[in-house]
Amino acid sequence: MSLNTFGHIFRVTTWGESHGPALGATVDGVPPNVEITPEMLQVWLDKRKPGQNKFTTQRREPDEVEILSGVFEGKTTGTPVQLMIRNTDQRSKDYGDIVEKFRPGHADITYWQKYGIRDYRGGGRSSARETAARVAAGGLARAALDKLVPGIEIKGYMTQMGPHAIDRARFDWNQIDQNPFWTPDAVAADEWAEYLDGLRKSGESVGAIIEVVARGVPAGLGAPIYGKLDTDLAAAMMSINAVKAVEIGEGMNAACLTGSANADEIYMGPNGPEYSSNHAGGILGGISTGQEVVVRFAVKPTSSILTTRKTITKAGEPAEIITKGRHDPCVGIRAVPVGEAMMACVILDHLLLHRGHVGENQGKIG
Amino acid sequence: MSLNTFGHIFRVTTWGESHGPALGATVDGVPPNVEITPEMLQVWLDKRKPGQNKFTTQRREPDEVEILSGVFEGKTTGTPVQLMIRNTDQRSKDYGDIVEKFRPGHADITYWQKYGIRDYRGGGRSSARETAARVAAGGLARAALDKLVPGIEIKGYMTQMGPHAIDRARFDWNQIDQNPFWTPDAVAADEWAEYLDGLRKSGESVGAIIEVVARGVPAGLGAPIYGKLDTDLAAAMMSINAVKAVEIGEGMNAACLTGSANADEIYMGPNGPEYSSNHAGGILGGISTGQEVVVRFAVKPTSSILTTRKTITKAGEPAEIITKGRHDPCVGIRAVPVGEAMMACVILDHLLLHRGHVGENQGKIG
Amino acid sequence: MSLNTFGHIFRVTTWGESHGPALGATVDGVPPNVEITPEMLQVWLDKRKPGQNKFTTQRREPDEVEILSGVFEGKTTGTPVQLMIRNTDQRSKDYGDIVEKFRPGHADITYWQKYGIRDYRGGGRSSARETAARVAAGGLARAALDKLVPGIEIKGYMTQMGPHAIDRARFDWNQIDQNPFWTPDAVAADEWAEYLDGLRKSGESVGAIIEVVARGVPAGLGAPIYGKLDTDLAAAMMSINAVKAVEIGEGMNAACLTGSANADEIYMGPNGPEYSSNHAGGILGGISTGQEVVVRFAVKPTSSILTTRKTITKAGEPAEIITKGRHDPCVGIRAVPVGEAMMACVILDHLLLHRGHVGENQGKIG
Amino acid sequence: MSLNTFGHIFRVTTWGESHGPALGATVDGVPPNVEITPEMLQVWLDKRKPGQNKFTTQRREPDEVEILSGVFEGKTTGTPVQLMIRNTDQRSKDYGDIVEKFRPGHADITYWQKYGIRDYRGGGRSSARETAARVAAGGLARAALDKLVPGIEIKGYMTQMGPHAIDRARFDWNQIDQNPFWTPDAVAADEWAEYLDGLRKSGESVGAIIEVVARGVPAGLGAPIYGKLDTDLAAAMMSINAVKAVEIGEGMNAACLTGSANADEIYMGPNGPEYSSNHAGGILGGISTGQEVVVRFAVKPTSSILTTRKTITKAGEPAEIITKGRHDPCVGIRAVPVGEAMMACVILDHLLLHRGHVGENQGKIG
Repeated sequence: MSLNTFGHIFRVTTWGESHGPALGATVDGVPPNVEITPEMLQVWLDKRKPGQNKFTTQRREPDEVEILSGVFEGKTTGTPVQLMIRNTDQRSKDYGDIVEKFRPGHADITYWQKYGIRDYRGGGRSSARETAARVAAGGLARAALDKLVPGIEIKGYMTQMGPHAIDRARFDWNQIDQNPFWTPDAVAADEWAEYLDGLRKSGESVGAIIEVVARGVPAGLGAPIYGKLDTDLAAAMMSINAVKAVEIGEGMNAACLTGSANADEIYMGPNGPEYSSNHAGGILGGISTGQEVVVRFAVKPTSSILTTRKTITKAGEPAEIITKGRHDPCVGIRAVPVGEAMMACVILDHLLLHRGHVGENQGKIG
Repeated sequence: MSLNTFGHIFRVTTWGESHGPALGATVDGVPPNVEITPEMLQVWLDKRKPGQNKFTTQRREPDEVEILSGVFEGKTTGTPVQLMIRNTDQRSKDYGDIVEKFRPGHADITYWQKYGIRDYRGGGRSSARETAARVAAGGLARAALDKLVPGIEIKGYMTQMGPHAIDRARFDWNQIDQNPFWTPDAVAADEWAEYLDGLRKSGESVGAIIEVVARGVPAGLGAPIYGKLDTDLAAAMMSINAVKAVEIGEGMNAACLTGSANADEIYMGPNGPEYSSNHAGGILGGISTGQEVVVRFAVKPTSSILTTRKTITKAGEPAEIITKGRHDPCVGIRAVPVGEAMMACVILDHLLLHRGHVGENQGKIG
Repeated sequence: MSLNTFGHIFRVTTWGESHGPALGATVDGVPPNVEITPEMLQVWLDKRKPGQNKFTTQRREPDEVEILSGVFEGKTTGTPVQLMIRNTDQRSKDYGDIVEKFRPGHADITYWQKYGIRDYRGGGRSSARETAARVAAGGLARAALDKLVPGIEIKGYMTQMGPHAIDRARFDWNQIDQNPFWTPDAVAADEWAEYLDGLRKSGESVGAIIEVVARGVPAGLGAPIYGKLDTDLAAAMMSINAVKAVEIGEGMNAACLTGSANADEIYMGPNGPEYSSNHAGGILGGISTGQEVVVRFAVKPTSSILTTRKTITKAGEPAEIITKGRHDPCVGIRAVPVGEAMMACVILDHLLLHRGHVGENQGKIG
Repeated sequence: MSLNTFGHIFRVTTWGESHGPALGATVDGVPPNVEITPEMLQVWLDKRKPGQNKFTTQRREPDEVEILSGVFEGKTTGTPVQLMIRNTDQRSKDYGDIVEKFRPGHADITYWQKYGIRDYRGGGRSSARETAARVAAGGLARAALDKLVPGIEIKGYMTQMGPHAIDRARFDWNQIDQNPFWTPDAVAADEWAEYLDGLRKSGESVGAIIEVVARGVPAGLGAPIYGKLDTDLAAAMMSINAVKAVEIGEGMNAACLTGSANADEIYMGPNGPEYSSNHAGGILGGISTGQEVVVRFAVKPTSSILTTRKTITKAGEPAEIITKGRHDPCVGIRAVPVGEAMMACVILDHLLLHRGHVGENQGKIG
């Protein structure tokens, strides 16, 4: 498991298990002289924190982040920033059932098959708790971006819960922070609340689709051929627990379009090139166009449900299992700040790559 | 553009432009003592080669691969393998129109904005010709896999052209090599032929969906957290020209499912764990389960069409452009062998990573 | 400062400043199922710990290491191991002099010139305290090596202090742990004690040469061309604070030899090839021969001395400075366990690389 | 052998064997808009080319470099530059002796032990011919540096042949290009000519010490902790064939100095900080000071000599071997341009790293 690092220049290494003493992110390549405080990071961690309403797991973790290095008198120094979050809600309990049995849809079996040892407590390293460290690192990336690209904005929201998609005609940016699902469609928020409450009570779970948008990204970011901006975004989002698909711009639907319907026409705006549409999702040839960068990803339903499921034991015997205890009926909700964090990290990374490699060589238009 | 390398241990660096003297792949980390000949690679290059029927571009390139290093007496030596393909069909022509104008949907504008210089001939580095080098490298990966994992099979096919999906009830592995679209649905093949011919004649293009399956992949491959098998597959497929989305197993549809519908139940088969279904696409927690690894990606319609499109010039003036000349009405067809090549490279890479890091520590079941 | 990571597969990222709350090492790529306890790591940290005798700095740090992740029930799980050491001896004091003035021979001026900000407290990130994290990581590497290569032995010792070299005729392995200088020459130990005491009292410092030997390294480790075993050892040792030169085997003296004097002849021993001599230092073409791997490095005298030195201030004004307070008269002493740690990390890294890439392909002799 | 790449941002991957069809360098991360022609690279290749006088091997290779990609209309485009050199002097000959026997001091035995297969023709991948590719890449790095850091100068020269060192009092920059040994000491050049002629006639060889200096390097380059400028220089030089030691500034001699003798005092010059001396070799804490960067390395005598040597065969039988044919009596001579090339690559790499990571944050003095 030698690949716990993400990024080329702005490099985030997460560490820690669900029920160990702590988890965190070692962040290397942070530009110097960026103002940062634990409070600035805590904002994003609180957004992801469990137990805030009935739709997220009741595990209660304060998720307080400590900055152990790389910051001096409130500013980054260019040295590695260690962000640590203590695990506090480690209930002593009987893990008997999951010690010997593999939970369907979880990584229990594959971690065992790979390593021959696994920390089964709460999923160990494969727990979605790992994403807390990403969110902390993402907060750091946002602070650096705010300094380097004033006005940049990164925002995630839910566009579909189970089979129920939002109505784009009702899209309202101001609604996103007003409901527990981070959705821009207020009507959908109400409907989903009822729908999810029913699922929760029956011990079921459901999947979701999250969209993350970055506004104000300069044109020219992205490193073809294997470090394209969309390549790295796809990797970033797919690496999040439970994600099964990633789309850029038109996404899977691009298959259905004709060339004339798909290619965004170009015209000259007051501040540079503009486009008649954004099927491309703000990326052409792996390089940002200056439009909104649009990424979407699907989160599968959490596999921890109150239904008896067939499985096997380590001994290979048939068995049944119910995953009792606290769980998220729609883990996609808490994936919203995680997607935002990954977007922030990728954009910052490519900004640093670009200015290192290309410097002042960019082409001017007009 | 310092990221032209793909892979962690089995590392493929592609180089070259569409209309330069040559292009190729520098392949590092090739296991020693693998039998390889140019002919073994040529099989896959021929599958991707243009000009084979009326549905692919009429550019005629023999795409003959030369092995310049790393092979001695027909076997790899463990040193870098240089695979070179000469560009032969470099028609001298007037590039006037694309020198000054940016083609919508192409990377012309972003390469210019990034680098301040671009090789406009045939798209230069952003041309899909780059994928020939990937296919050659993929052939090498297949040869190594055949030695290290006897019986492994990697197969790609088209499951949708434009809005027309195959009927899974007609899925027939034996049909895949029997039609120009590499589709397992013979009826769809006939329908698509007619459909695409119409598009081609009208100078239009259309998107497609490709599915790639790997059978016989051992359980345990994948390097959490940021080198998960699905993370690397997502990056690999998204890095292919014109790809806008990547799905693993259930993909985007996972959002619609409930936890009980989605999680694959486990039982004990004669040779180890088996599963009641494969919504996971053969990957749990980023690690292979031993089931088929299933990846799907959407290819946008090529933006080179015979329709007048609005654009701007380097000077920022409004302009119109038609992309004349040879083009693929459905570039997704030729993406099939490219997707296979990327799958082969990723699986081999993770096999080598796994045995380096984990060695003999795997857990046994039963 | 995006390069705080060392190693290809076994990857050590150190973090932390001299006077911050903590420092540590995030260690990725640790093989699973290796038995490890904090006590096993503490042995090596204690060897490096300051304040143990009058020849090392009187700063008193317990340097107790905590394992925060990657270990379950006393064994590694294959996930990242976080090793944290709290800084406890952070005397509140007036840093006034070094805030504005650059200490000659220190990194004060270059950190300032590079980053435009620096944590001046105790040298911040450039302090030799960073090497505590390396020693902890090296302890982990040793534990993994002990499991994977039974009988392997890694030992460092001092061969020269200032102009005074040991007499190789008096070389005695058993002496190394018997004196404060980790030297195999008991007579030299006595002489150096007197010599160094004089330097210490006069506020001076002096350089040293350290030799590190690894016995029992299997033949075949090393990854030509740019990951040669000696290349990585050179980088590893040169990255240690105050190191100015690295030698492999014959080292600089190789320049003086003729071909017939230098090339080690080969004969067949009972367990494989043996050599008439070891001018090569156990490495040919960047690959281990199975002989002792021998590395030597020179440590400059610490620049913290009680002599008035000329320098400038941040404002560019001429100034004088004396570095008061606790210092090591011969920092080379404490570099011995650091050199051992780096050797252990490099050898383990190459062992994992080798078995991943080459697997069972090694050639047999005889 | 998955580590044939050198550099972090400016990445050079060399490929090819001594007697294969070609060898070369795939160079990624080249800044765009750098003017380059094959002739500009050829200058450096000619400096390294064999057969120019009686002191270098009589193998005759034109070593003509072709640029296959990444350059458009005489300028780099920011895409990978492929530099290929055809091998032309591949005499068909009987390799019988070295097929079965391992040459002492060569990598024959370790390549066999590692890979179980080896291209024995002329040493295959371990031949010093690989350095031709480095020199070509170094030429490209020089061109980029000339654009980005006007006035920068990189120069290598020999300071010792066998036991005979130059007299620093006779050091004359203008002499370096005036003798076959690239030495600044004209008297030494004459003495060495006679000395080496004697060795050559007797079929012997001898080692050498090369010094490489970079003038005009800006302060602030270097990426602590594991990507320090001196760390990367040490790796770069140690990776060159036959190099056994690397020194920065004072080098091994730093061990002999006291703190007051070693630390370079600082004063303010007309254009910024200056130093009373350069024991540091232009690097403090891994970061450039703005002084001359000074690196020295020792090259062992070539092991191909006309003396009968004891060895073994692949079967483990005792044997004797004489390495007939063309050889360099002092391979250090041709290491001069190779050392220069590595210096150019490292400096450019760190320049790009610095401006990516740190950007405009540098501290000002005065």
